[in-house]
Amino acid sequence: MSTQGNNFDPWYHHYAERTSGLSASEVRALFAVASRPEVVSLAGGMPYVSALPTDLVTAALERTIQNQGASALQYGSGQGMPVLREQILDVMALEGIRASADDVVVTTGSQHALELIAKLFLDPGDVVIAEGPSYVTALVVFRSFQAEVDHVAMDDQGMIPESLREHIAALRAAGRTIKFLYTIPTFQNPAGVTLSWQRRMEILEICRANEILVIEDNPYGLLYFDGPPPQAMRSLEEEGVVYLGTFSKTFAPGLRVGWALAPHAIREKLVLANEAAVLSPSSFTQTVISEYLGAADWRGQIDTFRGVYRERRDAMLTALGEHLPKMTWTVPEGGFYVWLTLPDHLDSKAMLPRAVKELVAYTPGTAFFSNGDGRNKMRLSFCYPTPDFIAEGVRRLSTVINGELDLLSTFSQTGPLQTVREQERYDSPPANLA
Amino acid sequence: MSTQGNNFDPWYHHYAERTSGLSASEVRALFAVASRPEVVSLAGGMPYVSALPTDLVTAALERTIQNQGASALQYGSGQGMPVLREQILDVMALEGIRASADDVVVTTGSQHALELIAKLFLDPGDVVIAEGPSYVTALVVFRSFQAEVDHVAMDDQGMIPESLREHIAALRAAGRTIKFLYTIPTFQNPAGVTLSWQRRMEILEICRANEILVIEDNPYGLLYFDGPPPQAMRSLEEEGVVYLGTFSKTFAPGLRVGWALAPHAIREKLVLANEAAVLSPSSFTQTVISEYLGAADWRGQIDTFRGVYRERRDAMLTALGEHLPKMTWTVPEGGFYVWLTLPDHLDSKAMLPRAVKELVAYTPGTAFFSNGDGRNKMRLSFCYPTPDFIAEGVRRLSTVINGELDLLSTFSQTGPLQTVREQERYDSPPANLA
Repeated sequence: MSTQGNNFDPWYHHYAERTSGLSASEVRALFAVASRPEVVSLAGGMPYVSALPTDLVTAALERTIQNQGASALQYGSGQGMPVLREQILDVMALEGIRASADDVVVTTGSQHALELIAKLFLDPGDVVIAEGPSYVTALVVFRSFQAEVDHVAMDDQGMIPESLREHIAALRAAGRTIKFLYTIPTFQNPAGVTLSWQRRMEILEICRANEILVIEDNPYGLLYFDGPPPQAMRSLEEEGVVYLGTFSKTFAPGLRVGWALAPHAIREKLVLANEAAVLSPSSFTQTVISEYLGAADWRGQIDTFRGVYRERRDAMLTALGEHLPKMTWTVPEGGFYVWLTLPDHLDSKAMLPRAVKELVAYTPGTAFFSNGDGRNKMRLSFCYPTPDFIAEGVRRLSTVINGELDLLSTFSQTGPLQTVREQERYDSPPANLA
Repeated sequence: MSTQGNNFDPWYHHYAERTSGLSASEVRALFAVASRPEVVSLAGGMPYVSALPTDLVTAALERTIQNQGASALQYGSGQGMPVLREQILDVMALEGIRASADDVVVTTGSQHALELIAKLFLDPGDVVIAEGPSYVTALVVFRSFQAEVDHVAMDDQGMIPESLREHIAALRAAGRTIKFLYTIPTFQNPAGVTLSWQRRMEILEICRANEILVIEDNPYGLLYFDGPPPQAMRSLEEEGVVYLGTFSKTFAPGLRVGWALAPHAIREKLVLANEAAVLSPSSFTQTVISEYLGAADWRGQIDTFRGVYRERRDAMLTALGEHLPKMTWTVPEGGFYVWLTLPDHLDSKAMLPRAVKELVAYTPGTAFFSNGDGRNKMRLSFCYPTPDFIAEGVRRLSTVINGELDLLSTFSQTGPLQTVREQERYDSPPANLA
């Protein structure tokens, strides 16, 4: 083989153009860190699967083998099992969605639905509009198909319609092709906020008027803590919305079963793309979930999950109020995440190694933007650690943040800006921001 | 929404360019036909999972829940479980491969490894070299990334090295970019033939000299009937080969667990692509397979599968000799398929509806070529039906083929070519070919 090529990779010049956009996400490196038991990880998005009773899983497995053994072990349909697609309609009905099982495509987690949507729609140079911040691995997928992400501003009510209008106008004026709007309207990842009912209608109207497809990603909608959130955007609009759902948060992510509900023509193409990618999604894990939904009190189990995560959300909000009273954060009414804003001059990514040294991890805000924004933000997950560990994690985090603030305060008193040597500018946050 | 667009699809103009290449395969339509119980299907490639004892599966499930419950239900690594990757080394060692578990990436069936490889390497207009014929859904994947497939000739010893040399020279002379050679060297799908040891060395040498990466797809290698086949190409060459393996044929396809073994730099990119596509392959199905490999006599179970498929291969060869003595076919020494050649003037695709009417199905030869070749060929699968049904299927097939030959013979005696009306030319094979 030739020894030419970058990084001793003889195949360096053989990769597709799109592959240059495929880089390790910031969250990825964190998974390794977070797995050390002494670290309180507020970084990952792992559901607390221990809240799923073993006997419920075991019963579903037994029924799978007894009732469906041969078909569960075999290849299946590229669209997914008909019986499971019917059951998925029951799940979606909880959020106001009425649909036909024929328009549902089962995928290897909803992540794979996102990948297939991206493959079907994105040409190089296309634009995807998304909230700023947005889900890390959605950004990775869009970039991997050489699309750019344009971030629309949010507030506590979710995406701001006027900002969306402005972005569409600016992109169109610049001759850009907008392929779809990607949104997590409910208990958003990472911001934790929920798009209001009024705005759901308004944003759908804007997209309708501009012929922009909406990809509604809804992994957390059923995990509400107080009252139910506004119904899904898909409940308001059929032809303009592809809805993505998953069993990762209401059952378990290890089975990798999610789905897309799509307008008919898109659904047909999704099935073809799914077949090319994996032939058929796992019959085995589909059957296990179908048997679980068919026999267990799955609605009651979702209530259990809600209780677990509500208690953890409360623990995090209490700890933030106690340890970081001068910061600001979002107050999620469901889901997994709080979005914390630090003082302008702090850099959450630069601060991370110190946090890990203090045995706490989080996800830096820049991971959730494609444009470098989010420098003084961070995502705090309350889904996995117990309430005690969450409180301890926030306490450790406050030590780190306060230490950074003390350091900056000291820096700002050391003399005029001009005396800061170039090296110091890179080693620590610039003194002129203190 | 706009009502413009093709086929009443308002999103018709929004799809990526690559999506136009994503069409339903010929095999896909056949799955629906083959599922009718009265049809003997020699069409699909479904393993006979009933030969896997239920108690082996149940035991693996029990150990999964008892030993690995929480981790099996959780997200995992994008590269796959370390313990399973070590066990995969033991499986590959049976075909002479020595490797590091660090270079293995677990995927959602080996189909998904193929999709990820295509995503990493293929730009629009690139060329993939493959055997002619080759695996249907590999062709679909390559087309879905806008690559073209160039078919190299085969004989009973597999791909012909001299043909490969000529194709490389011709493609390079035409200024085309060859991204890799895709090959199924052992018990090839659909041809059933095996690349000889001498040719393995020769083809690797050609690819080395021409800096062409080899994708070695090996789903059937352990399912040999007489003696073991030549060792894997990957056993001869590390840096130039990406090897694809699967548990679909040695355990069960319903779990969707396969893998790629790749040179280090490619492996790194495969993991990133896998994470973007599915976050992580199913922890649950990986754990089930790992527990199965750890405790069951999996080598003995492969012997059982060999016995089942050997008996079916024998049944098919006997029936072909009995019912279609004037045709020619390949004699597979392992795997799932026989490749049947009809007289030149028969069209297996045009004949298929009549075959289904006679309650037998097969896969037309054209499905396995990207260039329209294979018109008088067909793939006959002996993996799924019992020996009795295989014999009956071949008998029915002979009725159809002999009926076609009779019809053509009659046609050729009806008069001069000029009297054949244009309509008849489309309704049936042209008389001048009879």
